[in-house]
Parts: sequence; C-alpha cells; structure tokens
Amino acid sequence: MEAEILEQPEVLRRQLETLDQFRSVAASVRQHDPAFVLIAARGTSDHAALYAKYLIETRLGIPCGLASMSTYTAYQANPRLERCLWIAISQSGGSTDLVESTRTAARQGALTVAVTNSPESPLASVAHACIDAAAGEERSVAATKTYTAELLATWLLVDAWDGGNGNAARPLPAEMSRLLQSPQPVWPTAGRQLERLVVVGRGFSYPTAREGALKLMETCYISAQAFSGADLMHGPMAMMDETQSAIVIASPGVGSSLLDPVLERLKGTGADLLVVGPSDFASQHIPAAVIAVDADIPEELAPLLQIVPLQWLALELSLARGLDPDHPRGLSKITITN
Amino acid sequence: MEAEILEQPEVLRRQLETLDQFRSVAASVRQHDPAFVLIAARGTSDHAALYAKYLIETRLGIPCGLASMSTYTAYQANPRLERCLWIAISQSGGSTDLVESTRTAARQGALTVAVTNSPESPLASVAHACIDAAAGEERSVAATKTYTAELLATWLLVDAWDGGNGNAARPLPAEMSRLLQSPQPVWPTAGRQLERLVVVGRGFSYPTAREGALKLMETCYISAQAFSGADLMHGPMAMMDETQSAIVIASPGVGSSLLDPVLERLKGTGADLLVVGPSDFASQHIPAAVIAVDADIPEELAPLLQIVPLQWLALELSLARGLDPDHPRGLSKITITN
Repeated sequence: MEAEILEQPEVLRRQLETLDQFRSVAASVRQHDPAFVLIAARGTSDHAALYAKYLIETRLGIPCGLASMSTYTAYQANPRLERCLWIAISQSGGSTDLVESTRTAARQGALTVAVTNSPESPLASVAHACIDAAAGEERSVAATKTYTAELLATWLLVDAWDGGNGNAARPLPAEMSRLLQSPQPVWPTAGRQLERLVVVGRGFSYPTAREGALKLMETCYISAQAFSGADLMHGPMAMMDETQSAIVIASPGVGSSLLDPVLERLKGTGADLLVVGPSDFASQHIPAAVIAVDADIPEELAPLLQIVPLQWLALELSLARGLDPDHPRGLSKITITN
Repeated sequence: MEAEILEQPEVLRRQLETLDQFRSVAASVRQHDPAFVLIAARGTSDHAALYAKYLIETRLGIPCGLASMSTYTAYQANPRLERCLWIAISQSGGSTDLVESTRTAARQGALTVAVTNSPESPLASVAHACIDAAAGEERSVAATKTYTAELLATWLLVDAWDGGNGNAARPLPAEMSRLLQSPQPVWPTAGRQLERLVVVGRGFSYPTAREGALKLMETCYISAQAFSGADLMHGPMAMMDETQSAIVIASPGVGSSLLDPVLERLKGTGADLLVVGPSDFASQHIPAAVIAVDADIPEELAPLLQIVPLQWLALELSLARGLDPDHPRGLSKITITN
C-alpha cells in the first residue's frame, strides 16, 4: 500500500500520455449525444463514480445518476436507455453484477464505456468502448493508485468530451509529488483509541470523504461513516460527542463555504476535529487539527490530491495498530457480487 | 415517537382515500413523457427517494437517479432537463437547497413534483405539482409516520402512472396494525453495550437499512452504518468482528437471495446478527436472532412494513439508554441546509 501510494504521481504522468484514447471515446460519446448518464461501480470505484457525477453535471450540464445494479441483475428490469451514456468503473473489470448490468444497458440502447485497469477483462469486452486506467498491477487489497487513476481517467474523458486538451491536469503529478514529500502533520487523535469516526465532505469533496472512510474501514477496522455535510445535519449530528472524531474535507472554492456551518456545529459537540483542505479555510477553524492541501489547480481536480493524506492516515494508523494494511482480514483483491 | 409509530396504519388508511391526487399528477407525468427521473431529498426523505428509484426503474423501466443538490446550489450548474421528471421529497418542504434546486430544475425544463407533508410549504409552491403525504403534524424529531407516508405516496404515484388502481396497497394498514400488535421479539444484543453496528439490505430492502440506521443514529447515538450487501463485501467487511453487530434486512422475493452470501460471510466474523425478513428466509440463518415480517404483499411494498420493527428497536433502545427519542440532542424538526 505504501509503495502504491507513492507511485501515484508516476501513474498520473503515464496516463496523461494516453490522451488519444480519451479523444477517441469522447468522439463516440458526442455522436451518441446522451441526454443523461448512468454510472455503475462498487467500492472504491463507486467513489470515482460519485466524482464523475459531480463533474459531468457541473462541467457539461448533463444530468447524471449512479446505477443500482440489482435493478438490472436481481430484478431484471430493462429500462429504456437509448439516450443514455452508461459508464462502468472497475479496477478488475470482473464483478458479475457490473458485467451483467453493462450488457443489459448496451442491449437497452445505451452507449457503454468501461473505465478499468484491466482492458482485457470481461467488463471491457462487453462495453462498446474501453478506457485503460493504466495504473499498473495493484497488489494491495486497499485500492489507492487505481482510485486516483480512475479519477483522472474520468476527468480526461469529460475534458475531451467538453473539447478540452487536458492541460489543466498537467500540474497534477508534480503537485502530488510535492504533497507526498511534505512532512505529514500528525493528527493528535491518531494516538488514542479511535473506533468511531465521521468523515464529512460536500460537493467535490464528498467522494473524498467516502473513499477516505472506506480506507479507514478496510485497513484499520474503524467504523468510519462518511456524510455529505448537509446529510450530517439531517439527523446523524445527534450522535456526535466527545467520544467521536470527525475529519472534514473542504474543497478549494465554493465547496468549502458549505462546510462552515457544519464545522461550527461540530465544534459545539466536543468531537475531536481534523480539517483537510486549503490553508486559508483551515485557519478559520482552529482548534481543529489541520492537514493543509494547497495547489494551484481548479476545484474539480482537487479530489485527486485531497485523498492522498487520507490514504496516508489509513496506512499509518493501520501500522500503529499492528495490522497489515496490504491484507485486510476477510478481503480478497477481486470481489465478485451478483 | 411511540405515538407516531402507532399512528402509521391510520396514516396509510387516510392516504389511500386520496387516490384522486395521484391520478391527477400521474396524468401530467404521462403527458411530459420523461426519459429519466431525478429525485431530490435529504435525511429520512432521501431514503424514500432511494425506494422510489428502485420502484421507478423496476416497475416502469425508466432510469432514475438521486440528485446532488450542491450541483444546483453551490456549483450553480444548469443541466438540460427537458426530458426529466424531477421529484422532490420533504416532510417540511422548507429546506433551502431543496427549494432552490427544484426551482432550477423547473427552469431547465423538468416537470417538477413535490411530495411533502406540508402542501403550503415553499417547496410545494415552486413545484409544478404537489402530492400531500397527509401524515398529519409530526412532532417527534425522529421521523417515522412521514417516512411510511412518503413511501406510500411514491408507490401510489408510480402505480397510477403505470395505470394501476392502488389495490395492491389496500392490505397495508391492516398488515401494519397486525405487525404493531404482535409481540416484538427482543434482540439479545439490545441488552449489551452497542456502539458500532452495520445495517445491511439489498435492492428493495436497502432503503430500509439506510432509514433504520438513521433512526439508531438519531435516537440512540449509535454509529450505525448502512450498506448494500454488495458494497459491504467490497471492503467494509474487514471491520466486522465479535465487537460489531449486524442487522440484515431481507426483502421477500428475489432481494433476499442476494443476501445469502452476505449472511454466510457475516456468520464467519463472530458479529452478533439479527435478521429482519420473511420467516422462511430467517429460518435458514440460525443462529441469527430473527424478527419475522410476513405479509401477503408484493416485494415492492415490503419496505413499508419492514421499517416498523427498526423504528421500534430504535425507540426501545433509546429509552433503555435513558435518552429522549423525541428530542435528540442538537437536532430540530426542520433542518435548513444550503
């Protein structure tokens, strides 16, 4: 896991040299002219799907939803999908429900695009088009480099679809290297018993909250619950007290302003707080601990950097607990679900 | 909360006498002929939205997604929604993000329908059409009767849209009364310290898992995490051990078969297990504790009954912990988020 976290800048650099595949798929997508997009994925890839949803809606103005695969597999529904772009995201490309639902989507008229690290997989073979995330073999069960590779792949696809040239993403590998080389501030809470934790985001930082929580569940066995800041206010805030901790992920830009009222409420609960985000946002929320992520990139690319300190936190906490982050108990690298 | 849980059969009975409003809105929906549906909601209503998503896709074959409201509010995106039906679900009809995103959806060409317990609310006034959930005033902060009223309202809308006459729902009030009158089996775990818990569903039982977890968070301050059975297998399963408990909600019908492999895995973790579902399913999964919910209704209506024992469990556990389920700390009845 450590090696794969550190490999991420190189993975992004390599993917940025494959712009042709994005231009080619984007041309097919434009020809299909979708009225809406459905994205199918599980686990870590589902968080890349959530990222893609925000990106497609805000950047392209095309409505987007996350697919419920059981609709297609268990309930055997056959929705009308002639005006749909169906994107399936998967590291392994092997999960049965993803392959079967993508096959159904194609039969129902959708244009289907696989984004996968396994371009020879069953998923790639049933989809009309395939984008290779090109992250190289991932050996750690807890996905890290394939997550950021999937984020960049969806960004490059959307950028090409929008007529872009990928340039806004070019600073990413260097920015990520810088982030990985800077000393990681230690969260005081990491030293104490941490069994319950909420991870909060909003907008572009919500997928980061979801993925960060999953890393902590997988590698540290912590009950880490991810919420959009708005949903936390609708009920779950009641469970917050001095026995809980909270990590708040703030995007640079408009995303962070939505988290101000959430942080104010969290401060009143006595929960231990960590803010991951731009320095100027974090400095307004003392006494929370801070992991500053500053980079000269647009908000829509910030999720590629903001996940890194959470990957690192999960790794360090797992080791501090005497666990093996590469081999979480009860998991295997490829999960098959029907 | 207790009074409102017990009031639910009467709420459903009353709503079943308002079929005219569903026929009228369904006629407008058919005329709009949507290619896809977006549903916007928060908190408990978001679980009714998730239910509606499964229902619309399986029953009508129309693809459906859950709206990310920050797309419309914070990021001010203006997706093209001419072929969209936009459904906004809210008890109070007052939350700013819901009202604003619904206004944007209407401006972008969507037909907008509010499902609310407050037909005089700002949400109702901005939507093209309004369905009154007619649950009567809800005084407990933890929503119960408005949840089942929202489920029935979305079912009646979809049924009318599909040309139905609402008849399949007619047994519900009597079935729910029977369920409320039957002695509730006690879950052995309820007596011990219960701080971490997962609630698992799949397909039509997944919204129930989400709503049950929220009740336990709100009223008992338990870190209750809801997962689709498939997502639990993709990572979070690692955190399950003898310090955890799990509630598995099994729909009658195909939904339950998808949970067999999940239950087998959970049994191996040492976690304390409770199964809520049909007797014949539960009997295959001894030594899990069982709350049997048997009724002669289709799977798509089972969520209206299956949530009841979870509401009751949250109420009893809250009281057993010396808490006030009607007034969770830090919450008010109407949550305003931007």
